Amino acid sequence: MKICVLPGDGIGPEIMAQALRVLRALDLDFSFEEALLGGCAVDATGDPFPEATRRLALESDAVLLGAVGGPQWDTLPREQRPERGLLGIRKTLGLFANLRPAILYPELANASTLKPEVVAGLDILIVRELTGDIYFGQPRGIELRDTGNGNERVGYNTMIYSESEIRRIAKVAYEAAQKRNGRLCSVDKMNVLECTQLWRDIVSDMARDYPDVQLSHMLVDNAAMQLVRNPKQFDVMVTGNMFGDILSDEASMLTGSIGMLPSASLDANNKGLYEPSHGSAPDIAGQDKANPLATILSAAMMLRYTFAQEDAAQRIENAVKTVLAQGYRTGDIYEPGTTLVGTRGMGDAVLAAL
Amino acid sequence: MKICVLPGDGIGPEIMAQALRVLRALDLDFSFEEALLGGCAVDATGDPFPEATRRLALESDAVLLGAVGGPQWDTLPREQRPERGLLGIRKTLGLFANLRPAILYPELANASTLKPEVVAGLDILIVRELTGDIYFGQPRGIELRDTGNGNERVGYNTMIYSESEIRRIAKVAYEAAQKRNGRLCSVDKMNVLECTQLWRDIVSDMARDYPDVQLSHMLVDNAAMQLVRNPKQFDVMVTGNMFGDILSDEASMLTGSIGMLPSASLDANNKGLYEPSHGSAPDIAGQDKANPLATILSAAMMLRYTFAQEDAAQRIENAVKTVLAQGYRTGDIYEPGTTLVGTRGMGDAVLAAL
Ligand SMILES: CC(C)[C@H](C(=O)O)[C@@H](O)C(=O)O
Ligand SMILES: CC(C)[C@H](C(=O)O)[C@@H](O)C(=O)O
Repeated sequence: MKICVLPGDGIGPEIMAQALRVLRALDLDFSFEEALLGGCAVDATGDPFPEATRRLALESDAVLLGAVGGPQWDTLPREQRPERGLLGIRKTLGLFANLRPAILYPELANASTLKPEVVAGLDILIVRELTGDIYFGQPRGIELRDTGNGNERVGYNTMIYSESEIRRIAKVAYEAAQKRNGRLCSVDKMNVLECTQLWRDIVSDMARDYPDVQLSHMLVDNAAMQLVRNPKQFDVMVTGNMFGDILSDEASMLTGSIGMLPSASLDANNKGLYEPSHGSAPDIAGQDKANPLATILSAAMMLRYTFAQEDAAQRIENAVKTVLAQGYRTGDIYEPGTTLVGTRGMGDAVLAAL
Repeated sequence: MKICVLPGDGIGPEIMAQALRVLRALDLDFSFEEALLGGCAVDATGDPFPEATRRLALESDAVLLGAVGGPQWDTLPREQRPERGLLGIRKTLGLFANLRPAILYPELANASTLKPEVVAGLDILIVRELTGDIYFGQPRGIELRDTGNGNERVGYNTMIYSESEIRRIAKVAYEAAQKRNGRLCSVDKMNVLECTQLWRDIVSDMARDYPDVQLSHMLVDNAAMQLVRNPKQFDVMVTGNMFGDILSDEASMLTGSIGMLPSASLDANNKGLYEPSHGSAPDIAGQDKANPLATILSAAMMLRYTFAQEDAAQRIENAVKTVLAQGYRTGDIYEPGTTLVGTRGMGDAVLAAL
């Protein structure tokens, strides 16, 4: 079980260190190898996704990522920005299925900005397509054109999905719904966009192969509203890369504890990249303040999806539940009456609970 | 002052009737003429935006719209769906600036699914570009292509903005910020989309012409989160057609009382189309249950933006505040201890308060 470890930028190295401690404590036969991705890779090599990282990632069974990005790289040319590294590794590894759970732990119900009765027990899985759509569509660019308003700059991108791309992500979503509560909501903008009309047609067409899944469709604007109005109506949601980017972040924030949320990005053979849903938090980097639980839970997702080690995955998840029940909290989820710990202290608590 | 009245579908005619009663009570020199848009227009003429409506809308100074759409028209071919009527009239009239306030009335603070301290006093104005972007971009369609996966269907759309389109909507947003609290947040996805990189460049470039406005930028995924985390951080937000569709609906729902929210869609000469932010609510149509206040407040926006009748606009807005303070509520905003009224009853209350 060869794991490519990419600590990344900001709080990345700190939270990764705790996830690795937890994985090592499981006494499974892992080999870990580290490489650079994001801003640290730009600093060292000029490339946010260097060739050595590409090779290691391709050879490994799974990739564990901390977080990438920071203000010091925001003014670099496009090709050198940290997020190019992220988009590059997703595309290179063919990680088309992004699974983003939005779960509210009962102990953290207060952290949400929503009323407790609206979010208590929230458990949504967003399945976002990750290697297609307007993120990668051609043609794209900024150029001079005669628009009728004279010669002026225009910026353009192409939203595009093929039938096979839609089928493979929908399959992941249907199967996820089968393992959960059997409800799948597909999100599109079919009333305006032909691209998503095709999406709706194909997802609908596949419904007959999943008689045990109850399929519904929702327009993306309505989905953005319904997540606020009544998020518990959802079980699994499936959507394209762009809408998924927006809705999965909105859904994460409903929990108020984005420091708790892991994610998985899978290819067709369950190879995957695992990373917390939160960012690199440069403001608290190096201060032993970051919450490592999303990264630790991402490691659990890795055990489940790539290595089919369901028991080990649950051991980690239960350890996290235990430390929450014991009252340990990093700053982002702290409230009076609980025990404030740092990044390393939280790692200690999880190890003890294992 | 010639007003084109488009009651539309579902609850449209009922809520429009109340808005017209309020406008007539002002004793200003309006002429009203009615026409068909949406599903009712499809039923009568086969076209959701018939030629007669187009002519009347072009000749009028302003358009007042109820709501369009309903399930019975959802299976029609694309060109005949009610929303085509809406997109058609926006484009024909050049209504590029959509102003969508998200305001939480103190009396209705409980209606929100968010905690009172998070939304009390919420007052955001979303400025959404309305005649460009992926909504209207060419090329678009569904066709067979050889994708490397054999010949298969692909669906595609084009996101596109020109410099002049971005400048004119940004100008509206900057000017709105000047009249409000001087803060403008421009939303894009510049880290992925060239189209929105141009957007950011141009909006930034214009900042020097508005030294009294404090400009910030936010990525769309983060904006979707921040609206949930801390919506009161925003004053004016400006964004493109697609992101604006999603974020303005999310922002409306933060208030929990979307039946209260008006909208304006303006051209370059303050000609405008005014409509409630909510939909046609077919489930309660014809039952005297719909909340007419968003339509009445849309009429107030019409007086302000198209007819520069600020006093009359404020008279209506104050009347609405009065009826809320008096405790009148339609079903959507009802809570125990208030007085439940129907659509017409709410119209009566506003007239009395005028
Ligand atoms: C950093 C950015 C390119 C990325 C995306 O838009 O996919 C991020 O927002 C995410 O969701 O992982
Ligand atoms: C009905 C639809 C075409 C429309 C849009 O997407 O613009 C609606 O959602 C809106 O926001 O007015």
